[in-house]
Amino acid sequence: MNILDIIAKKRDKKELSKEEIDFFIKEYTAGTVTDYQAAALVMAIFINGMTDEETTNLTLAMANSGDVLDLSKFGTNVVDKHSTGGVGDKVTLIITPIIASLGVPVAKMSGRGLGFTGGTVDKLESIPGYNTGITIEEFMKNVEEIGISVMGQTLNLAPADKKLYALRDTISAVESIPLIASSIMSKKIAAGANKIVLEVMCGKGAFMKTKEDATLLSEKMSAIGKLAGKETVCVITAMDEPLGYAVGNSLEMIEAIECLQNKMKPDVKEVILEIGAYILKLAGKGDNLEENKARILENIENGKAYNKFIELIARQGGDIEYVKDTNKFEKAEYILPVVANKEGYIKSLDAEKVGRISGSLGAGRIRKEDKIDMAVGVTIEKKTGDYVTAGETLAYIHANNEELGNEKVQELLEVYEIVDEPVEKTKHILGII
Amino acid sequence: MNILDIIAKKRDKKELSKEEIDFFIKEYTAGTVTDYQAAALVMAIFINGMTDEETTNLTLAMANSGDVLDLSKFGTNVVDKHSTGGVGDKVTLIITPIIASLGVPVAKMSGRGLGFTGGTVDKLESIPGYNTGITIEEFMKNVEEIGISVMGQTLNLAPADKKLYALRDTISAVESIPLIASSIMSKKIAAGANKIVLEVMCGKGAFMKTKEDATLLSEKMSAIGKLAGKETVCVITAMDEPLGYAVGNSLEMIEAIECLQNKMKPDVKEVILEIGAYILKLAGKGDNLEENKARILENIENGKAYNKFIELIARQGGDIEYVKDTNKFEKAEYILPVVANKEGYIKSLDAEKVGRISGSLGAGRIRKEDKIDMAVGVTIEKKTGDYVTAGETLAYIHANNEELGNEKVQELLEVYEIVDEPVEKTKHILGII
Repeated sequence: MNILDIIAKKRDKKELSKEEIDFFIKEYTAGTVTDYQAAALVMAIFINGMTDEETTNLTLAMANSGDVLDLSKFGTNVVDKHSTGGVGDKVTLIITPIIASLGVPVAKMSGRGLGFTGGTVDKLESIPGYNTGITIEEFMKNVEEIGISVMGQTLNLAPADKKLYALRDTISAVESIPLIASSIMSKKIAAGANKIVLEVMCGKGAFMKTKEDATLLSEKMSAIGKLAGKETVCVITAMDEPLGYAVGNSLEMIEAIECLQNKMKPDVKEVILEIGAYILKLAGKGDNLEENKARILENIENGKAYNKFIELIARQGGDIEYVKDTNKFEKAEYILPVVANKEGYIKSLDAEKVGRISGSLGAGRIRKEDKIDMAVGVTIEKKTGDYVTAGETLAYIHANNEELGNEKVQELLEVYEIVDEPVEKTKHILGII
Repeated sequence: MNILDIIAKKRDKKELSKEEIDFFIKEYTAGTVTDYQAAALVMAIFINGMTDEETTNLTLAMANSGDVLDLSKFGTNVVDKHSTGGVGDKVTLIITPIIASLGVPVAKMSGRGLGFTGGTVDKLESIPGYNTGITIEEFMKNVEEIGISVMGQTLNLAPADKKLYALRDTISAVESIPLIASSIMSKKIAAGANKIVLEVMCGKGAFMKTKEDATLLSEKMSAIGKLAGKETVCVITAMDEPLGYAVGNSLEMIEAIECLQNKMKPDVKEVILEIGAYILKLAGKGDNLEENKARILENIENGKAYNKFIELIARQGGDIEYVKDTNKFEKAEYILPVVANKEGYIKSLDAEKVGRISGSLGAGRIRKEDKIDMAVGVTIEKKTGDYVTAGETLAYIHANNEELGNEKVQELLEVYEIVDEPVEKTKHILGII
């Protein structure tokens, strides 16, 4: 077997065998297949596509290219939840203690992520003391003893995916459904999940801009899950405006805590219930989605989910006083209102633009080594469909630099599209696959 | 302008502008566009193709990426002749003195080439003393004074093509008509030609295996020539069996000399007359091809072409006694007959296999630094359509190692396909484009 034949085969739109895909991933990870050979193959894959079977084989080869977390001691129904990423997406922070409180083991390795805001582990680190860098032994022990642990990715999970993703980024080969699908699924499988619930974000602030693309990606990931023996459900959620009311790190953490304190806003609730219901279903806790939703609501209302969160934070060294009183979180120096200059209905609040504003305030990182400013970001008062009068506050910019903050106030004001006619509220769940 | 947008454009099957192609070639030659980015773009070009205009722009960008030979002092009708390569192809050796003897300036830079046998300059070097490494000044002076010079490629012609070709070889992206066409044409244009006659070989021993592919390549090169203002004619010639009767370096040189001594065999003559007639036409020496052929024959018969060859060899330091008496060429130690073991008609004599045999005797080089054995190779007595009796000699193996020679005798015998029914002689000119 040699890489030239493999490239030629995909170049000529033929299907690659499992052995050929394994060979490519093994030799590329080892460096005997060069970057330019991988680039040629990836471009051929981008243009000529891959069947579900090829995509599954690629996924498994990448999943097995490094460490694979063994969660079998927690049974065969360990569910992982993943989001393809959106602005203001704090679903993981909220959902994990809820489902843990319902008896589903949560062993979650989360990323930091580049982009507008930090990832789940960054947001957790806004609680002083919370240790995302615990050992695998502590991680496993926490899951065993309290049913939940959330840590950073210290293992070398799917290094082939990492290498291939970095390459794709430099050769205009990112937006390929099979390549995106296998990249996501390989990391989930390496992280030990048997069942996977994916939050596929779709819209202006997401990677997938259209419902068609989000559907294609979801279908591909579900197909991979099926062929790989990892039951997978994709929940397609709207990301035209930010999810919830906070964009930033500690700002999103605070919103998540408030949600667990039973102060959840309707749009977040809609997404949490839907995703949570599927996680419970896949975990074997009940096939009736409406009943699952009721149990989730119950555990929010009775405080069990909140208490599970407190337990998690305490166990990993976090100061639970911050959870109990979110006023303790360090605030940005300048909290500047964005004030409506006209009356009307909000037609749109472009999630990507809000994300960029938050990122430029310091909430995100462009390079891995960049430091995040936990306190900055945006809090939203008015969303699509809301009616405002001139002079009403639309949102707040949280900045640690006054000039920059004022500049962003202007920018955010321009992002708000206000019209005379009433506007329908956005739908948040667009489909289940 | 940036390479990511350019890759994405071709990936999405859009047409690249001249500026984008220039940018790619300039930055790739400079090294700021990496090999993996070039690999991705080349694969996208391979799969999605290029229009004639794109291919012409690529050709010109590569032609201008290094030295460009200025032959304008020899007028606007300087014709270059190039072969896409075949086994036993000594046309350049024969045709150049002929057309020089008819008043067409010949300023030819020739390659060494990898593969079964050496290139034109290797074959010339089988004449002791012949200097293919003269300076550009001497080269120009020879053309001015005696109307002909043939030297090796000392200039840095089309380095972008060299770099891109080496890359294509490692990523299964060789067999692309636009990429092959632009590679050939860029070198010709950099070598200073205004008019180009291309011998496009087609068949088992050539790069283009089918007439369809040879036609597509010819059409593409003619289109480039037209758009680039370099009138181009492609002569598609058959390469199912070797051209002529010798395969090797001094062996082919000897056959070429004999041709110039008016001992040309029919198949070589057919090709020489056709190509020569077009060269004369493009050089403005007459539009009537039959008249041109007659003048070529005349100059072979009256010795003018031969004398021009002697003049060239003498001028560049070669020992003309070798030309006058080809017995002087160093012979291989073992000249072993390949004897027919049955009676019948020769159905085929696979050129590629003959080439491989010649190469494995030492006539070719695999790496640039390999040394060629000038004396070894194959001389052919019987070709397709010939009738043979058992015991008749089909060919000779010229070897400098007895064991290897005997092995190749057996191999060559197996290459001869002998059948009972009469077989038609091969047609040598398959088309003109």
